[in-house]
Amino acid sequence: MSTSRDQKRTLWYDDSAQQLRIIDQTQLPHQLQVVAIETLEQACDAIVNMQVRGAPLIGITAAFGVHLALRRDAGALAQTCETLAKTRPTAINLQWALSRLSEGLVSVPQAQRAEAALEMAKTMLEEDAAACSAIGDFGLELLSALLTEKQALGGDSVLNILTHCNAGWLATGGWGTALAPIYKAHQAGLPVHVWVDETRPRNQGASLTAWELAQSGVPHTLVVDNAGGHLMQHGMVDVCLVGSDRTTASGDVCNKIGTYLKALAAYDNAVPFYVALPTSTIDFELEEGVRDIPIEERAGDEVTHVSGIDEAGVKRKVAIAPAATRVSNFGFDVTPARLVSGLITEKGVFPATGQGLQDIRARL
Amino acid sequence: MSTSRDQKRTLWYDDSAQQLRIIDQTQLPHQLQVVAIETLEQACDAIVNMQVRGAPLIGITAAFGVHLALRRDAGALAQTCETLAKTRPTAINLQWALSRLSEGLVSVPQAQRAEAALEMAKTMLEEDAAACSAIGDFGLELLSALLTEKQALGGDSVLNILTHCNAGWLATGGWGTALAPIYKAHQAGLPVHVWVDETRPRNQGASLTAWELAQSGVPHTLVVDNAGGHLMQHGMVDVCLVGSDRTTASGDVCNKIGTYLKALAAYDNAVPFYVALPTSTIDFELEEGVRDIPIEERAGDEVTHVSGIDEAGVKRKVAIAPAATRVSNFGFDVTPARLVSGLITEKGVFPATGQGLQDIRARL
Repeated sequence: MSTSRDQKRTLWYDDSAQQLRIIDQTQLPHQLQVVAIETLEQACDAIVNMQVRGAPLIGITAAFGVHLALRRDAGALAQTCETLAKTRPTAINLQWALSRLSEGLVSVPQAQRAEAALEMAKTMLEEDAAACSAIGDFGLELLSALLTEKQALGGDSVLNILTHCNAGWLATGGWGTALAPIYKAHQAGLPVHVWVDETRPRNQGASLTAWELAQSGVPHTLVVDNAGGHLMQHGMVDVCLVGSDRTTASGDVCNKIGTYLKALAAYDNAVPFYVALPTSTIDFELEEGVRDIPIEERAGDEVTHVSGIDEAGVKRKVAIAPAATRVSNFGFDVTPARLVSGLITEKGVFPATGQGLQDIRARL
Repeated sequence: MSTSRDQKRTLWYDDSAQQLRIIDQTQLPHQLQVVAIETLEQACDAIVNMQVRGAPLIGITAAFGVHLALRRDAGALAQTCETLAKTRPTAINLQWALSRLSEGLVSVPQAQRAEAALEMAKTMLEEDAAACSAIGDFGLELLSALLTEKQALGGDSVLNILTHCNAGWLATGGWGTALAPIYKAHQAGLPVHVWVDETRPRNQGASLTAWELAQSGVPHTLVVDNAGGHLMQHGMVDVCLVGSDRTTASGDVCNKIGTYLKALAAYDNAVPFYVALPTSTIDFELEEGVRDIPIEERAGDEVTHVSGIDEAGVKRKVAIAPAATRVSNFGFDVTPARLVSGLITEKGVFPATGQGLQDIRARL
């Protein structure tokens, strides 16, 4: 991975090789493998197969995908955007990135479009990293205040944060969304401890978040997705912090399946529930998340089979259910705004309300 | 498995071999293996290793364990009960069964105790099967009413039931608790469909409930534990039906970790949430479940590792998290009575309130 300017990167463009490079997230935590992406097809496959995943990263990858397509066929802008838009339905960043490229490139002469697309993609990558860093700074203030409050109430001196899925630097241009405040807090010397939901069915918590946090020495404990309610009932969680794949104009938040259940438990136990997101995940066109956000359905074998390594270190896929079992596999759910304590964006922390979203929009 | 009188059994006593026989639930769904239990140590191991599990079945196994111990050492009653009581902490049936045996056997001459214990254990097994059958009958009335109500409102004609963990015939003397009404409904020709939570970390839903339902031809769909909230938000669940490992005098219900999250989602979406339990799981000594019920913590490798079969049918255990990851693994959580629509017992359906529990007690 690139660690330029002390910042961990999951995706970067290699100018000398003229290749996009990505960490193959399907190989983690057992193997850190960097793969080259040289064609539109490879970019699409990487998104569909979740070698890259996370709302911001999907958008960035698509942007580089436009460059890769245009350098082969400079006239293929519209068709390329259409192809990329179909890779995954839920995260709005994909549409956001493609619209931005379409609009920016349509007035550029065809012969210069590939190069212009590359510059735009690189800019998006840097902007996302900067946005995540700002999210981290705003989130750090919030975590710091929560810790002060906890200590004032005589609690122990560690702030316990529960997160779901992976919203770290692996999922973004850098830093992460939900994990950015945690990294900043850890670097600032705040005593934080993270409860990591394993995040079935693809185990992004167990395989990616636990790995990321270990890389940076942030104390953490892995739990099954079922555990969060019990932990909150027993005062073991001070704040929940998750990412978002799409946020509506009313403040509803669409994130990895199971997020809604944690938000319900947080609400029931008066635990603050914050969502960290770059403003690129906001869909100002939609109001009601549960009704209007398209929820991706994925293959059933993600549920019936589990991948990991055996005792000899060999990667294997094992079946955990009877062979003929019918499966339903929704990838995301929607947490209604009423359960969200606040939205941590690169523009500051806002309430998850229509007014809060209007205030964000006014700053864009 | 024994199918005498058309009733599936997960545990039975073989009089000619003088052995307890159990289905080894750790081998399902890939292999149906019956093992013989001949000593107290084997009975304890079977409970600890979850070859037998489910609150009622643990109690019954312990009762047979007392017989196995006494036939080797007729004077070992107190010590045997002490040993068995330590095998698992949360389900009250274990204590209930051991108290019943202790009290019943203490006045029996030592030479006759082993035989008396065997008779008591067999009686408990039959009583539990009968209790579960009665739970099924009362639950069937309830499901039937819910279906009629749904159809009157113009909904589709299938009743969608979500269940968590395994509370079927594998977990009891017969029929099951939460699954008993479902089996009775299916047999009565009611169109039912079951959403089966996989139930991490041990996947009792994927490996046991899906297998059980398939054996009886009950339509079902496997989902990850994270999915229930989304399903309920979208009207895809008509009722939740789960078991209980311990029920307090105020109606709080302790069940497999994650049950509380489903109860919250049911409440938030006005989906009825029923708990099916033989009265042997009621602990009239306890009031506040969250505060007072001891929650078992199990080994971390249940979370970091998953067992299944590979493509060649070979059983393998794979690691899904980085090697050094710290884990917390609570086995149960408590659903407060305020989230429970009703308790389905062998004595009828009662509200999950102090008065409801008093009414149950009055019928015992």
